[in-house]
Amino acid sequence: MNSELERIAQGISSMEIRGAGRIAVASASALRSVANASTAGTVEEFSSEVKHAARRLVETRPTAVSLPNAMRYVIRHGLNGDMSSVEDARTSVIKAADDFIENANNALHLIGEFGSRRILDGEKVLTVCNSNAAIEVMRHAAAQGKDIEVFAMETRPRFQGRLTATALAEAGITVNLIVDSAARYYVREVDHVIVGADAITANGAVVNKIGTATAALAAHEARTRVSVAAETFKFHPDTVVGELVEIEERDPNEVLPASDHIDGVRVRNPVFDITPSEYIDIIVTERGVIPPQASFYLLTNLFGWHLTERDPWEQ
Amino acid sequence: MNSELERIAQGISSMEIRGAGRIAVASASALRSVANASTAGTVEEFSSEVKHAARRLVETRPTAVSLPNAMRYVIRHGLNGDMSSVEDARTSVIKAADDFIENANNALHLIGEFGSRRILDGEKVLTVCNSNAAIEVMRHAAAQGKDIEVFAMETRPRFQGRLTATALAEAGITVNLIVDSAARYYVREVDHVIVGADAITANGAVVNKIGTATAALAAHEARTRVSVAAETFKFHPDTVVGELVEIEERDPNEVLPASDHIDGVRVRNPVFDITPSEYIDIIVTERGVIPPQASFYLLTNLFGWHLTERDPWEQ
Amino acid sequence: MNSELERIAQGISSMEIRGAGRIAVASASALRSVANASTAGTVEEFSSEVKHAARRLVETRPTAVSLPNAMRYVIRHGLNGDMSSVEDARTSVIKAADDFIENANNALHLIGEFGSRRILDGEKVLTVCNSNAAIEVMRHAAAQGKDIEVFAMETRPRFQGRLTATALAEAGITVNLIVDSAARYYVREVDHVIVGADAITANGAVVNKIGTATAALAAHEARTRVSVAAETFKFHPDTVVGELVEIEERDPNEVLPASDHIDGVRVRNPVFDITPSEYIDIIVTERGVIPPQASFYLLTNLFGWHLTERDPWEQ
Amino acid sequence: MNSELERIAQGISSMEIRGAGRIAVASASALRSVANASTAGTVEEFSSEVKHAARRLVETRPTAVSLPNAMRYVIRHGLNGDMSSVEDARTSVIKAADDFIENANNALHLIGEFGSRRILDGEKVLTVCNSNAAIEVMRHAAAQGKDIEVFAMETRPRFQGRLTATALAEAGITVNLIVDSAARYYVREVDHVIVGADAITANGAVVNKIGTATAALAAHEARTRVSVAAETFKFHPDTVVGELVEIEERDPNEVLPASDHIDGVRVRNPVFDITPSEYIDIIVTERGVIPPQASFYLLTNLFGWHLTERDPWEQ
Amino acid sequence: MNSELERIAQGISSMEIRGAGRIAVASASALRSVANASTAGTVEEFSSEVKHAARRLVETRPTAVSLPNAMRYVIRHGLNGDMSSVEDARTSVIKAADDFIENANNALHLIGEFGSRRILDGEKVLTVCNSNAAIEVMRHAAAQGKDIEVFAMETRPRFQGRLTATALAEAGITVNLIVDSAARYYVREVDHVIVGADAITANGAVVNKIGTATAALAAHEARTRVSVAAETFKFHPDTVVGELVEIEERDPNEVLPASDHIDGVRVRNPVFDITPSEYIDIIVTERGVIPPQASFYLLTNLFGWHLTERDPWEQ
Amino acid sequence: MNSELERIAQGISSMEIRGAGRIAVASASALRSVANASTAGTVEEFSSEVKHAARRLVETRPTAVSLPNAMRYVIRHGLNGDMSSVEDARTSVIKAADDFIENANNALHLIGEFGSRRILDGEKVLTVCNSNAAIEVMRHAAAQGKDIEVFAMETRPRFQGRLTATALAEAGITVNLIVDSAARYYVREVDHVIVGADAITANGAVVNKIGTATAALAAHEARTRVSVAAETFKFHPDTVVGELVEIEERDPNEVLPASDHIDGVRVRNPVFDITPSEYIDIIVTERGVIPPQASFYLLTNLFGWHLTERDPWEQ
Repeated sequence: MNSELERIAQGISSMEIRGAGRIAVASASALRSVANASTAGTVEEFSSEVKHAARRLVETRPTAVSLPNAMRYVIRHGLNGDMSSVEDARTSVIKAADDFIENANNALHLIGEFGSRRILDGEKVLTVCNSNAAIEVMRHAAAQGKDIEVFAMETRPRFQGRLTATALAEAGITVNLIVDSAARYYVREVDHVIVGADAITANGAVVNKIGTATAALAAHEARTRVSVAAETFKFHPDTVVGELVEIEERDPNEVLPASDHIDGVRVRNPVFDITPSEYIDIIVTERGVIPPQASFYLLTNLFGWHLTERDPWEQ
Repeated sequence: MNSELERIAQGISSMEIRGAGRIAVASASALRSVANASTAGTVEEFSSEVKHAARRLVETRPTAVSLPNAMRYVIRHGLNGDMSSVEDARTSVIKAADDFIENANNALHLIGEFGSRRILDGEKVLTVCNSNAAIEVMRHAAAQGKDIEVFAMETRPRFQGRLTATALAEAGITVNLIVDSAARYYVREVDHVIVGADAITANGAVVNKIGTATAALAAHEARTRVSVAAETFKFHPDTVVGELVEIEERDPNEVLPASDHIDGVRVRNPVFDITPSEYIDIIVTERGVIPPQASFYLLTNLFGWHLTERDPWEQ
Repeated sequence: MNSELERIAQGISSMEIRGAGRIAVASASALRSVANASTAGTVEEFSSEVKHAARRLVETRPTAVSLPNAMRYVIRHGLNGDMSSVEDARTSVIKAADDFIENANNALHLIGEFGSRRILDGEKVLTVCNSNAAIEVMRHAAAQGKDIEVFAMETRPRFQGRLTATALAEAGITVNLIVDSAARYYVREVDHVIVGADAITANGAVVNKIGTATAALAAHEARTRVSVAAETFKFHPDTVVGELVEIEERDPNEVLPASDHIDGVRVRNPVFDITPSEYIDIIVTERGVIPPQASFYLLTNLFGWHLTERDPWEQ
Repeated sequence: MNSELERIAQGISSMEIRGAGRIAVASASALRSVANASTAGTVEEFSSEVKHAARRLVETRPTAVSLPNAMRYVIRHGLNGDMSSVEDARTSVIKAADDFIENANNALHLIGEFGSRRILDGEKVLTVCNSNAAIEVMRHAAAQGKDIEVFAMETRPRFQGRLTATALAEAGITVNLIVDSAARYYVREVDHVIVGADAITANGAVVNKIGTATAALAAHEARTRVSVAAETFKFHPDTVVGELVEIEERDPNEVLPASDHIDGVRVRNPVFDITPSEYIDIIVTERGVIPPQASFYLLTNLFGWHLTERDPWEQ
Repeated sequence: MNSELERIAQGISSMEIRGAGRIAVASASALRSVANASTAGTVEEFSSEVKHAARRLVETRPTAVSLPNAMRYVIRHGLNGDMSSVEDARTSVIKAADDFIENANNALHLIGEFGSRRILDGEKVLTVCNSNAAIEVMRHAAAQGKDIEVFAMETRPRFQGRLTATALAEAGITVNLIVDSAARYYVREVDHVIVGADAITANGAVVNKIGTATAALAAHEARTRVSVAAETFKFHPDTVVGELVEIEERDPNEVLPASDHIDGVRVRNPVFDITPSEYIDIIVTERGVIPPQASFYLLTNLFGWHLTERDPWEQ
Repeated sequence: MNSELERIAQGISSMEIRGAGRIAVASASALRSVANASTAGTVEEFSSEVKHAARRLVETRPTAVSLPNAMRYVIRHGLNGDMSSVEDARTSVIKAADDFIENANNALHLIGEFGSRRILDGEKVLTVCNSNAAIEVMRHAAAQGKDIEVFAMETRPRFQGRLTATALAEAGITVNLIVDSAARYYVREVDHVIVGADAITANGAVVNKIGTATAALAAHEARTRVSVAAETFKFHPDTVVGELVEIEERDPNEVLPASDHIDGVRVRNPVFDITPSEYIDIIVTERGVIPPQASFYLLTNLFGWHLTERDPWEQ
C-alpha cells in the first residue's frame, strides 16, 4: 500500500491530523499521492486503485464531514474527464486534488473577504465560540479600517469565547466578553451575529457550538442579521440521504468539576445545537454567499452528492 | 426615636437584614412597633408619627422593591379605617402590619401550593438561578407525589443553578444540570419553565436573573408554558409612575477571574434581564394566579399605589 | 332542610338541571329560597344557614364552573351589606340572588347586543361547535339587517356544527358547512371568528370545544379577529388559586363506531382544547367587552374570589 | 336653562371648543356651573338637574370620546357621596368637577414626567403625526438633559410631522424628518417609538393617525419598545359595550389635489388605523403607566362605565 | 399507431390506470414501447415519433402531475444523447425510459429509507390522510426496531386516516386515532409531523389533503419538525410558468349525507390545502432530502422544466 | 476602437441610455457589434477583443446591475462553445448576444404572462411605486378578462404611485390611490401584493423603492401573498461575493421643499429598502417563477457568477 496514504490514514485515525480543514487537505493529498505513484496498467485498474484509497481514508473517521467531501470532489472531478489513458486519468486526478487543496487553503481568506464586505463601519457584532472563519471575517473588516465592536459569548463549558476575545483584541478590535445568557440582552443593539459552523445540512440547518441557535433566535426576534461563515467542506453529505447529525454529549466534568459533584444530579453536556435556516440570512462560503436553502444545490453541484447515487468508492 | 425602628432601619441600611422577604417583614414590624409604643395625643399626631417612621425606613434602601410596598400596605390599610381615636388608629395600624407580615410569611407556602397545582405528574421543568419561590413550587409538586424532572440552568457567572440542583435533589427530585446555552436545546421536551422574579413592573414585565428572558423566548418558540413565581411585594411600585428598573452591572471578576485577564477585553456583567409579558403565561403570587398584565391592577389594589397619588409618607 | 334547596340540589346532582346557565340560576334561586324561609334568630345564625346551603349546593357538582360563581356572588353581595337585623340580612341576600338571576337571564341578550355591534355589514364569520352565546351574537347582527355569511365547522366527533348551521339558517343567515380541517382554508377570507367558551381561566385562556384553539391560531396567522362570547359565570374561579381545567376524554365510539373497530388502534377523544389569550381579541360578556387578560380582574371583582380568601361557605 | 351650560354646549356644538382636552374641561366646568347655580329644593331634584345638563352636553357631540368621560366622572364621584342635603350634593358635585378639571389640566405635564423617565440618555425615538402628549414626553426628556434624537414621520396626507419636527427642534432636540414609508428602515436603530392616541378601546387597542399601526408593527418586528402617551379621557367608554370606533374617511383632495385628478382613480383617505395591544408595551397616562390590557380596568374604575350600567344621565 | 401506446393512453384516459406513480410508470413504458417498435428511417423521424407519442399521452389527462414529468424526463434524457443513428437514439430513449421507471419503482423504498433515518427511537409522529410515502417512512423506522407512536388524524370527510391507522397497526406500530381538530392538542408532545403530497410547486409549497396546512402551522407553533414524503414526479411542472394548482371541490355528500340535508345551508368541500414552505423542514424524495425551496432547482434539473422552454413535444 | 461600442459606452456613461433593461440590451448589442466587426486572426485574439470590450462597457456604470449580467451572459455562453476557428467563435458570440437581447426584449411580456396566471378573477392587489413588470402582470390579468381592483400606494416622496394609478386606470382596471401609511389598513382585504425590484441579492432579498418592505411585512402579518416581478438581469451579481447593495439617499428637497425648510431639522431620504426573503412568496422572472432562495442558483446558472470565479473580462 502507498506509504503516504498509510501515513495520512493513520494520522487521521489517531487524531494527529484533526480539524475539518486539515483532514480535508491531508486526505485529498493522499489521493494525489496514490495517483502519482500508481503503476496501474489500465484506466480501470487506476480508477479502482484511487477509489480503494478513498474508501480506506473514509473509513478512518466515519463521522468527519470534510473527509468524504474531499474524496467525492477528487473522484467526481478527477475520474470524470478525459480517460483515454492512465496518464490522462493520473493528470486529471492530480489536478482535481490540487484544485481541492488550493480551494481549501484559500477558503478562509476568501470567506474573510466576502463576509467582511457585509460589515459596515461602526457595526457591533456578536459571536459565539471560537470559529476561525468568523474571526477571519471580523479581522478582514478591521483590516479594511472598519471600526467594529465585538461581543464575544464566553461559551460554556470550555470558555472558547475567551480565545476569540484574545484573538480579536490582538487584531486591535474592541471586544466585550459576556456570559452566554447575556446574548439576548445585547443582541438588539448589535447589528450582526457572525458565527462559524461544524456542519451544515442538506436543508440549510447549521450545526454549531451549543448557544448558537439561541443567539440566532434572539437575533431574529430583534431583526439582527445572522451570518454563518463556513468552508464548503462543512456541508454534510449524508444529510442528503436523510442522516441526522448526531449531537455528541461530552464529559460532564466540563460543566461541573468532579470536585463539585452533587449527589443525585446528572450533568448533561450536549456540545452542539441546530440552528434552523429561518434564523440565518446567509452562509458565507469560499465559493460565494448563499442563502441557507441553497445548501442542497451546493452539495450536489460541488461534490456530486447528487440524488441517490451511491458513494463512488463503493461502485 | 423608637429603638426598635432604629434597630431595624440600621439593620436594613447595613444589609444585615436583606432579601426582599426579610426586609418587607422587618420594616412592617418596625411600623407595628412604632404604633404600639406611640404616645401621641391625637390621631393626626399618631398618623404623622407612623408616616415619619415609614419615611425613615424607605430612605434606608431607596432601591429595594419590597420596602415601600410594606410601608404602603400598612399605611393604606392601617390609616384608612375607623380613626375616631388614637386607640382605634393604633389597633388598625397594628392589624395592618400583622396582616402584611402574616401574608408575607405565608407567601412562599401559598405560592408553592398554587403553582404546584399547575404541574402534572411526569412533567419536565426548566428553571434558572436559585429562586425560593420557584423551588417551593417544584417541592410542593414532588411532595404531592408527582414525578417531575428538572433541568437546572447553571446560571453563570455565579453558578446559582448548582444550589438549585442541590436543593431539588435533596427533595428527591430528578435533576439535570446544564449550561445556560443549552436551555433552547432542552426546552422543547420540557413542559414548563418555572422561574422567580426580582421585580415585576406595572405592565407585567419580569426582571430576573440574566438568562431568564432567553429561556422564556425559547419556551415561547416551542409552545412551552412559562410560569413566574413571586410574592406580591416584588411588584415594583415606581414603575407605575414610569421608573425603569435599573439593570445593575456586577464585578467583572465574576465572569473572568482577574488572573485570566485579557488585555484590551472589557467584561460586561449585567445581572438581570427583562422578560416581556408576551412570553409569560402566568405569575403565581400568594394572592392568586394572575396574567402578567394584571400587574397594574394588583399593584394599585394592594398597595394603593393608585394613580398619581404621592407617597403617603410625603403627604 | 329547606325543601326547595333539596329539590334543586338533587336536580343538579342528577343532571336534570344542567347547562352552565341553568345551574347558575337554579342554585342562586335555592339560596333565595333558603333566605326567604329562614327562621334564624340572629344574623350569625342566618348567615351560617345561608353558607351551609351554599356548601350543600356546591358539593352536588364539584366540577361545574357556574355553580360556585353563583354562590360566591350571593354571599359576597348578600352577606356584606347592612346586617343590623335578620330582616336586613334576608333582604340583602334575596336582593343579591335576584340580581344574579336577573343578570344571568339577561346575559345572552346583552352578549348578543354587545357582540353584534362589532360585526359590520357584509362580514364573513367562522364559528365552531354550537354555542348559544356565539349564535346570539350572529342572530343579533342579522336582526339589525346586517348581511353576514357564516362558515360553520362541522365539529367532529358529534357534528354540533350542523345544529349551529340549522339555527343560523333558520335565522335567515347564509351558512356554509365545512369540515373542521378547512378552517384555515377559509379563515383568511373571513373577517371574524366568533366562538363560545366552556370556561375561562384567571389568565384569560379559553377552554372550549376541541378545534377552537386551532381556528384561533389560524385566525391569528391571517390577522382575522377572534371574539369569545361568554357569560361571566363561565370564568373559572379555581384557576385563581392554580387549578388547571381538566380536559375530559369522552367515549371513543364518538370518533370510531364500535362497528368499525380497528385492532391495535387506540382512539383518543379529548373534548376541549385551550386557546391562549394571545389569540383572542376580546371576550364579550354581559358585563362588557373585555380583553382576555382582564379575566382575573373580573373574577375577583365580581365574585370576590379575591386573593387567597377561602371559600366563604367554609369560613 | 343655565346660561354657562348653554354657552358651553353651543361652543362644543359649533366646534368653537374643540380638542379632546378642551372639550373635557369645558363640559365638566359646565356641570360645575349648573351645580353652583342650582336652586333645587331636594337632592333628587338637584341630581336630576345635573344629569339633565350632562345629557344636554353629551348630545352636542355624540362622537367625542372625552365628553361622556367627563360627565361620567362628575356624576359618578359627585352624586355618589354624602347626599343628605342639597348643599352636600352641590359641594360634592363641585368637588368632582374640580378634581376632573385639575386632573385634565395636569395631565400633559404628568404624562411628560412619567413617560420621560422611560427614555434613556442617548436614545433615538420615532414618532408619527403631531401628538401633544408624545411631544411632552420628549420635551421632558430633553429638559432633563437627555440627549435624544427623533425621527419624525412626515404623516401624509397633511404633513403634521412637520409641525412635530418644528416643535421638537425648537426644544433643542435633534430631529430627522422622513417619509412615512421609511419608518421600518429606521426603526431597528431606534430605541423607542412614542405616539399619541385619538382613542383607546376597552381591550387596549389604540386608535391613532394612519401610519401608527404600521410603525408599531415594524417596531415589534425589531424588538423596539412602543409607548403610547394619552390622557385617561381618551379611553373610549362605548367600546366597553361593544361599539367599534368608526374610522372616518377625509377629503380625497388631501391626498390628491383636485388639480391632479386622475380619471377612473378613486382616492381613499382613512384618517386613523388601529394598533392591536400586542404591539404596545405601555400606555402612559396621567394616572400611571399601564399595560394596554388594563384599559378595561381603568375605564370601569375611573368613569364607572362599569359592567352594563346604563348611562347615568338616562337613569 | 403503436398498440401498446394506445392501450396505455386509453387506460389513463378511462382512469383504469390511476395514481400518480402508476400513471408515471405506464406512460414512460408506453414511450419505451414506441421507441422499441419504431421503424423510422431517420433520427428526425424517430424523434418526431417519440414526441408525438408523448403529446398523445399528455393529452389524456391534462391535470395529472406525474404524466408530463415522465414525458419530459424521457425526452430530455433520451433525445439528448448521442444521436448519430436511429439505433443510438432508440437505445438512448429506451434507457431513459428504463431509468425513469426504475427510479419510480424504487422511489417509495428510498423515501422510506431516507425519511426513516430522521426518526429517532421513541419518537411520536403525527400524520394526516393516507399517504403511501409517509407510511413507508414510518414502516421503515419500525422495521429498524425503532419504537414509534403515531397519531393519525381521521381525515374528514372520507376518513382516510382509518386506513392509515390500520396499515400502521398491522406493521406493529402503536397508533392513536384522533379527530382532525385534535392535531394542535397533540402536536406539542409529538416530535415529528410526516405527511405526503399531491403536488409540490416551484416555490416549495405543498398541496396535500385538507388539514395538512393546519397541522403544519400548529407544528411550527410548537417547534415540531415537519417532513413531507414525496416522489419527485409530484413536483408540479406548470407552476414554474406561474400556474396555480387548482383546489378541487368534491361532492357535498361526503361532508353532509343527502339524508341530513339542511335547508339553506351550503356545504363546501375543498379537497386540498396549501402548506407554505416556511412550515416545512424537509421534503424527502427518492433523489435526496431537500429543503422545500430547492423545488425549482430539482424541477429544472430533473425534468428540464427549465426556464421558459416550451413543452418538448410541441417543438 | 469599434465605433458602435464607443457610441453605446458613451450613451450609458452619459445616462442617455438608462433603465436596467435598455442598458442591458444596448451593452449586449455592443458586444455583438464588436464580434461582428472583429478582424482578429486567432481565437485568442478574438476572445481578448470581446473581453476588452466587455470591460470597457462595465466601467461606464460600475453600479448598474444589468450591465455586468449582460456581459457575463454573452461571454459565458459565447466564448464557451465550439471555438475551433474565429468564425465559429464569432458566430457563437453573436448568437449569445442575440439570445440575451431576445430574452430581455421578451422578458416583460413573459413576466406578465406567468405572473397573471397567479391572479384570480375578483382579486384585490396592492402595489407600490411604478414598476413596469408589476404593471405588466396586472395588465395581463385584466386583458384575460379578470376583474381586479388595485390599491396603489402614492409612493412618497415623488408620488410615482400616481403614474401607476394612471397606467392601470387607462388599462380599464379599478384603481384606488392611498397614502403609503394606509398599506397595512388595506392589506388584509387585499389578496395579493405585487411589486417590482431594483435589485435582487444572492440570498433572495429584494431591493426596491422605500415602502416595499413595510408593505411586505404587513402582508405577511395578514397571510397575504407577496409576488415580486423582475427580469433576471435584476439579480445582483456582486452580492454573490458579499457586496451589500448600497441604499442611496436622494435630495432632501424631494421630501421637504426648500421653501418649507425647518431650522434644525435634517431631512433623510433613503430611496430603497430591503425586503427579506421570508416575506416573499415568489419572484416572477421571464425564466420562470422561483422562490426567492433560488436566487443564488439562478445567478450562478445563468450568468456564470459561479462561486469565486473572477470577472471573465479580468482573466
